[in-house]
Amino acid sequence: MKICYLPGDGIGPEIMAQALRVLDVFKKEGMNIELEEALLGGAAVDATGEPYPPATQKAARAADAVLLAAVGGPKWDVLPRPQRPERGLLGIRKDLNLFANLRPAVLYPELANASSLKPEIVSGLDIMIVRELTGDIYFGEPRGISEEGGLRVGRNTMIYNEEEIRRIGHVAFKAAQKRNKKLCSVDKMNVLETTQLWRDVIIEISKEYPDVELSHMLVDNCAMQLVRAPKQFDVVVTGNMFGDILSDEASMLTGSIGMLPSASLDANNKGMYEPCHGSAPDIAGKNLANPLAMILSVAMMMRYTFANEAAATRIETAVKKVLASGLRTGDIFEEGTKRVSCTEMGDAVVAAL
Amino acid sequence: MKICYLPGDGIGPEIMAQALRVLDVFKKEGMNIELEEALLGGAAVDATGEPYPPATQKAARAADAVLLAAVGGPKWDVLPRPQRPERGLLGIRKDLNLFANLRPAVLYPELANASSLKPEIVSGLDIMIVRELTGDIYFGEPRGISEEGGLRVGRNTMIYNEEEIRRIGHVAFKAAQKRNKKLCSVDKMNVLETTQLWRDVIIEISKEYPDVELSHMLVDNCAMQLVRAPKQFDVVVTGNMFGDILSDEASMLTGSIGMLPSASLDANNKGMYEPCHGSAPDIAGKNLANPLAMILSVAMMMRYTFANEAAATRIETAVKKVLASGLRTGDIFEEGTKRVSCTEMGDAVVAAL
Ligand SMILES: [Mg+2]
Ligand SMILES: [Mg+2]
Repeated sequence: MKICYLPGDGIGPEIMAQALRVLDVFKKEGMNIELEEALLGGAAVDATGEPYPPATQKAARAADAVLLAAVGGPKWDVLPRPQRPERGLLGIRKDLNLFANLRPAVLYPELANASSLKPEIVSGLDIMIVRELTGDIYFGEPRGISEEGGLRVGRNTMIYNEEEIRRIGHVAFKAAQKRNKKLCSVDKMNVLETTQLWRDVIIEISKEYPDVELSHMLVDNCAMQLVRAPKQFDVVVTGNMFGDILSDEASMLTGSIGMLPSASLDANNKGMYEPCHGSAPDIAGKNLANPLAMILSVAMMMRYTFANEAAATRIETAVKKVLASGLRTGDIFEEGTKRVSCTEMGDAVVAAL
Repeated sequence: MKICYLPGDGIGPEIMAQALRVLDVFKKEGMNIELEEALLGGAAVDATGEPYPPATQKAARAADAVLLAAVGGPKWDVLPRPQRPERGLLGIRKDLNLFANLRPAVLYPELANASSLKPEIVSGLDIMIVRELTGDIYFGEPRGISEEGGLRVGRNTMIYNEEEIRRIGHVAFKAAQKRNKKLCSVDKMNVLETTQLWRDVIIEISKEYPDVELSHMLVDNCAMQLVRAPKQFDVVVTGNMFGDILSDEASMLTGSIGMLPSASLDANNKGMYEPCHGSAPDIAGKNLANPLAMILSVAMMMRYTFANEAAATRIETAVKKVLASGLRTGDIFEEGTKRVSCTEMGDAVVAAL
């Protein structure tokens, strides 16, 4: 397995270190793991002037899977847009053609109290949001700020062609087939033509999946339904921007975004795996970060890219054991549990493996 | 006061009837109220072929304020796009230049249990979301579905000029001055140039409001923060599409969108007032709808267009009394309260006035 890992910015290096310790356990047991470190985001800008430099492109392209911790921070927000860390993230997704973003929102029973929602509304929550990741308004041209008639004008373009919609639709229908066979497609078809095409295409390909129950929901209604009754959803599929908003909202329903991994896949199950949370510059370097989402990203990598369900389950079971034993980083701490540091949490997971 | 009222579709006529009874109380007491009914949405399409026909344009333009119940329903979703009910809504907002949408999300203590969030997270919630309403991707050109290289392509354009941002920014800063002097501006500046301009302009005009504490938040983070800790917000200002999603999410935090009014204002406080909820075709004609958001929209009209704080407060107090007496329509019913119909709820509010 060739794995390229990108510690990135903020708490990134701290949580990546814990994920590497988990991989090291498998390596010592004889798993054939080749690791290569590379730079992405602010760290890459500081070293090379570019958020996704050529050396990283080479390493990422050559790897079977990429592990990414987190990028970004206020330090780089003042840079010209092409040099910002987020451009590195968008760049690597586009470069590796990682068009399918899988974002589970799962509530661990031990953490039910962490949710701001009533336990009966969220306990047992298990949603998978499938977000298209390489198209939509985040990439559309024309874009930019220009001067027109003496006024500054900002402009971006939402755009999808039917082929882009079809391939993410197939990923979502297949994910639904492996779960509870319910797929909800989210759009704004009553106002945006782009998403009318989205709905048309999803309906067209649904004929190939007669065993999946397809429904449609407008994005503003979905933002409401996630709050009102999130357990109504199984798999949700939507475009890049709506998926950005809704997958973050869904992950917060669980009460701790520090627990949630994500996968971004290409057409051949090559993938980039990363926590849903950001680089948390406020706690960077303090050994306070929660490494579990990063560690669970390794589990997703084992499952989706390397089809090693045993290794994936073993990591997930170790994380559950550690939670059951009462250890918590600050973000998931509550009365009656034991507050531990990032490295102590890593120690516990390695021991539980 | 010249008021144009638009019953619209679905439950619209039922809830509008109750709002008119409230206005009738004031009229009988001698308030100078002139009413004119007009058609909007599906009802207008059925009668004239257009969702915002010329007769309605004339009546709406001539009025000081417009009361709208709700538009839309599956019956009209199959029509060509220009004839869809939602186009009527977008059309009247644009025609009357109603660029500022005020969306309160307030949790009445009597209904605290209705929320899916824990009471301690939402009790006392009082947010005002200020949504720009006549620009952004909902109106931007070019737009549409075309065929390019043998593929169908959907396209929409997000666009704002600095003047559009400035005028909604001023509305939001002024609203914050009248409340807790905190304004959070929501954008996606790290990816979308349009919203980078948004942030730049909001920062520029903030210098005129040194008493207001300005903060900025990315839209995906805001969708999370509304779930995690909604009481951190006072006034939120954002563009049309983000405002559509976030204001609906915020209203659902209260547990009943059937309770929430909204105002859409032009530069001279002429306004259109309507419930946040939709036309609920599933319960239309059954006398089950909750008329309170429509009635509270009348209160907002008294406050914002007619500067009649006494009348506004009197309506709001009547609604609070009715809730305290235990009457509930189906959408807000819970054990220990009395389930009533739409007309019975109207009876009770009229009696409490
Ligand atoms: Mg996001
Ligand atoms: Mg909406």
